[in-house]
Amino acid sequence: MDYLKIFSPATVANVSCGFDSLGFAVDAVGDEMTFTKTAEKGVRILQITGAELTYNVDENAASAVVKKMLNEANANFGVALTIHKGFSPGSGLGSSAASAAGAAFGANQLLGAMYSKLELTKFAMFGEQVACGTAIADNVAAAIYGGFVLVRSYQPLDIIKLPVPKKLRVVAIHPQIQIKTKDARAVLPTKIPLKNAVIQWANLGGLVSGLYTENYQLISNSLVDVVAEPARKRLIPFFDAVQNAARKAGALGAGISGSGPTIFALCKGDKIAEVVHKSIEESYSNKGIDFEMFISKVNQIGIKIIKST
Amino acid sequence: MDYLKIFSPATVANVSCGFDSLGFAVDAVGDEMTFTKTAEKGVRILQITGAELTYNVDENAASAVVKKMLNEANANFGVALTIHKGFSPGSGLGSSAASAAGAAFGANQLLGAMYSKLELTKFAMFGEQVACGTAIADNVAAAIYGGFVLVRSYQPLDIIKLPVPKKLRVVAIHPQIQIKTKDARAVLPTKIPLKNAVIQWANLGGLVSGLYTENYQLISNSLVDVVAEPARKRLIPFFDAVQNAARKAGALGAGISGSGPTIFALCKGDKIAEVVHKSIEESYSNKGIDFEMFISKVNQIGIKIIKST
Repeated sequence: MDYLKIFSPATVANVSCGFDSLGFAVDAVGDEMTFTKTAEKGVRILQITGAELTYNVDENAASAVVKKMLNEANANFGVALTIHKGFSPGSGLGSSAASAAGAAFGANQLLGAMYSKLELTKFAMFGEQVACGTAIADNVAAAIYGGFVLVRSYQPLDIIKLPVPKKLRVVAIHPQIQIKTKDARAVLPTKIPLKNAVIQWANLGGLVSGLYTENYQLISNSLVDVVAEPARKRLIPFFDAVQNAARKAGALGAGISGSGPTIFALCKGDKIAEVVHKSIEESYSNKGIDFEMFISKVNQIGIKIIKST
Repeated sequence: MDYLKIFSPATVANVSCGFDSLGFAVDAVGDEMTFTKTAEKGVRILQITGAELTYNVDENAASAVVKKMLNEANANFGVALTIHKGFSPGSGLGSSAASAAGAAFGANQLLGAMYSKLELTKFAMFGEQVACGTAIADNVAAAIYGGFVLVRSYQPLDIIKLPVPKKLRVVAIHPQIQIKTKDARAVLPTKIPLKNAVIQWANLGGLVSGLYTENYQLISNSLVDVVAEPARKRLIPFFDAVQNAARKAGALGAGISGSGPTIFALCKGDKIAEVVHKSIEESYSNKGIDFEMFISKVNQIGIKIIKST
C-alpha cells in the first residue's frame, strides 16, 4: 500500500461511571487523514484543515506518532500526511486521540500491518503524551478498537473490547467554550470517599453487565457518576439543564464527554435519540452560548479505510 | 408446604476488586435449616447445632427474619426452626448471611412463595442488621440468587446476577482466629486515592467482562484489590504466604473472603484446585495456627430445598 485515506472517529471517554477507564467511539464525527509513502525518509505534514494545529513534526500528535513508528520499524521510506479535523480540539471528544490513533493506524498500513491493535494503542498514547502531556489510553483505544473499550490496566496495558447493544445511539452537544484538560483535572479531588468509590464501581460493573446482556434499563440505571461529574459540571454552563432535558426526553443517561465541555447522552433507538436531540437543543437555546450537536450510532469497528492504492 | 429442610450456602463477598459490591456462593459448605408450620403463631427456635448462637428470637438473625416476614404477611400460623451451622460464625464466609438468607427463603416457602428474590434479599438484610449491625447485601444476595451477584445499588436495591464460568473452582482456608467485622471495618480508610479507585473499578469491569466471556486469563488479571486488602491483610497472619502459594500453584487469584480471616482462591478446573489446595495447606502448616480448608464449585442456584412435605 502506497497511499490511504482514513476516517478516525471522535470518542467519548469516561462515560459517567467509567472515569479514566471506559470509552466508546462514534460514527458520525471524526477526522479524515491521508498517508502517502515517500522515497524521502521522515515525516512531513502537507496540510491541516478544519482546525489550527502545529505543523512542527515533533509537536503535532499525528506526525510525532508516525515518526516514532517509522523509526522503530526502521522503515526505508517516509510519509507525507494530510489531516482534516472534523471536530474541534478542546471539545472533550478526543480530538488529539483521533489524530494520534489515526496516525498509528495509517502508518501501520504503510508498514504492512505489522503491529497489533494493542501496539497501535501504545503508539497512539505517545501522541496523547505529545499533545496533552499525559499518555492516556481511553480515547485512543476506543478509536482503534471501536465500540466500547475498557482500559483494565496500564501496567501492563490491557484493553478489553466490550459489546455494543444494537440500538444504542449517542446524542452530543458541544457548547463553544473552552475547558483545558489541565483545568478539568485540577478540579478533581485527589482522594475520594470510599463509599463513593463503591457506588462508582458497582455502577461500572452494572454498565458492563448491561452491555453484555443488552439490558437498556440496567445501562440507564448504571449511568451515574458520583466522582468526576460533581466536580467538573460547574465548568460546563447549564450542564444540569442538559442532563435533565436528556433524561426527561427518554435518554438512558447523560454525562460529561471526557473532560468536557461536550455533554453526551445515550439513547435506545433512533426515535428517542431525535427527541432527546430536540430537547437538549431547546434547553441550550437562548443561553447566549453557541453550540454544535450531533446524533450518532456507536462506532463498532474503529478507524476505517476510505480509500487506498 | 408444612415442613422443609434447606441448604443455605456459605458465600465469599468482596472478591478482591469488588469490595462491598460483589459476592458469590459456594457449593460445599453451608447451613442446614428446617422450618415447620405450627398452629401457634410466632417463631420458636427448637435447636441450634454446630455453633453457639442466641436462642433469643429477636436477636438471632434467622428467627428475627422469619418473625418479620410472618408479621408483614399477616400469617395465620407460626414457625418452628432448627439451625445446623455447617461453618463457623466469624469466618468471613457469610455465616449470619447464610442463616438470614436461609430463613427468608424457608419462611417464603411456607408462605406460598409470595416474595421475589429481591424481596427475600431485603428481608435477609434485616437479619444481617440484627446480627452485625449493618444491613449489607452482598453475602445474602449471593446466597439467595446463587452464582456471582453484583449489588449495583442500595437505593433502590438492585441485584445483578452474573454468569459463572463452568470450570471455576474455589479453594478456601479458614485460619482459626477471630476477626470482628467491626475491627475489619475500622482498618479501612474512609477516603482513598482517586488513582487507586480507578485501578479498582477498571479491574471490577474486567472481572465482570471475564465472567461473561469465560475468559479465565482476564478473570485472573482482574483479581486485584488495591483498596481493602492492603489494609486488612495485616489482620490475617501469613496472608501474603497463602496468596503467593495459591498464585504459584496456578490459582487465578486469591484474596480475603468478606472481612476475613478466610482466604479464598479461584481456580480453573478441579486439578488445579487440588494443587492449589495442597500448596496453601503446606504454606500454613507448622505456623502454629489451626485451620480448616475446602474445595468447592461455585454454587449456581443459591439456597436449595433438601426435603419438604
